[in-house]
Amino acid sequence: MKDGRLRLYSVATSSASHRVRIALGLKAVPYEYVAVPLFAQDSEEFAAYRALNPQGLVPALVHGGAVITQSLAIIEYLDETVRSPPLLPADALGRARVRALAQAVVSEIQPLQNLRVERHLRTALGHSEADGLAWRRHWINVGLAALERMLQASATASFCHGDTPTIADCCLVPQVFAARRWGVDLAPFPTVAAIAERAGTLQAFRDAEPQRQPDAR
Amino acid sequence: MKDGRLRLYSVATSSASHRVRIALGLKAVPYEYVAVPLFAQDSEEFAAYRALNPQGLVPALVHGGAVITQSLAIIEYLDETVRSPPLLPADALGRARVRALAQAVVSEIQPLQNLRVERHLRTALGHSEADGLAWRRHWINVGLAALERMLQASATASFCHGDTPTIADCCLVPQVFAARRWGVDLAPFPTVAAIAERAGTLQAFRDAEPQRQPDAR
Repeated sequence: MKDGRLRLYSVATSSASHRVRIALGLKAVPYEYVAVPLFAQDSEEFAAYRALNPQGLVPALVHGGAVITQSLAIIEYLDETVRSPPLLPADALGRARVRALAQAVVSEIQPLQNLRVERHLRTALGHSEADGLAWRRHWINVGLAALERMLQASATASFCHGDTPTIADCCLVPQVFAARRWGVDLAPFPTVAAIAERAGTLQAFRDAEPQRQPDAR
Repeated sequence: MKDGRLRLYSVATSSASHRVRIALGLKAVPYEYVAVPLFAQDSEEFAAYRALNPQGLVPALVHGGAVITQSLAIIEYLDETVRSPPLLPADALGRARVRALAQAVVSEIQPLQNLRVERHLRTALGHSEADGLAWRRHWINVGLAALERMLQASATASFCHGDTPTIADCCLVPQVFAARRWGVDLAPFPTVAAIAERAGTLQAFRDAEPQRQPDAR
């Protein structure tokens, strides 16, 4: 990484932001934290963010003038440009397994249980807050059950793949935070829960936690 | 790729399967097509598939005894093991952009508009088929608008990134098929539509189309 100056546009409680904070911590790369006012979409600050990231979603990483969006794209970029420690295994099949585990969170769970979907259920479809919460819990339960089966089906050691954290762990841990936030019981997902607990003993994971961010509420 | 024998577990109309079929076609890798009875989840055939892929989702690629799941993980694996033609740019920022565009489909659009979510809306939340269709159209419109902004915001040539297809195009084209299937007007997304049209002139994209698969209905 030639230019060390990194800015992360983040929201404390955003799972996708949380993933990238973990990866930055594991790589021990210093960065400037910029809180995005995602809950004030009519503000001038948010308009400025939208000019930077036309998708209007968080996170975004700014590196030497380049804007990188989408959490997994950012983490793969970090892994390619800051080689140590690697967040992907050395073998192609291992990398495929790690990426599949990551996608099992990033494309199968998180999109279905996030704020904009829950909001749409309430505002456009007239559902109650209780319905919105049940919806979140449903998809977290379905998704974590699939993730648990994947983890149990093939070699998993201390972390999702082996004894050091990978991209998969950067995704699993924020999803466990979200599950707890919405009151999902983790007892049916013992492997998922054990990995999250182990991750919580590492400083990089602790530093990335939602409640430790400047915009924690 | 040492062992040439590949089996793709696929569903004709599945966007995620469609992505992988495009990538296999672009790499000109022959493969055996196995239709998964996704619409008969109580069948013995589906139980056998679930033993192979504990997530129970399509596609899955079997390569020399290894089972690889999740479309993007499969495509990255193909790109690493079959080098030509590359489906990712040579530079790290280019790769990040392509992966971000792919995720803008894979994690922001497709999960919200797919069958299991529409089915849950109807069966668990009591919505009508019309509500289900409106839901699909809503998220496709929101997602394609974001994708269009991303494509317009930075360098795009004939395809999503430059003049040859990348992983991003493997994702964009099936999403355009899904948009048409659900009656979404593509006029507000001219860049997206133009890329899909151009892709449709290439044999690899044509061979991967849903209606050309053995399990097309």
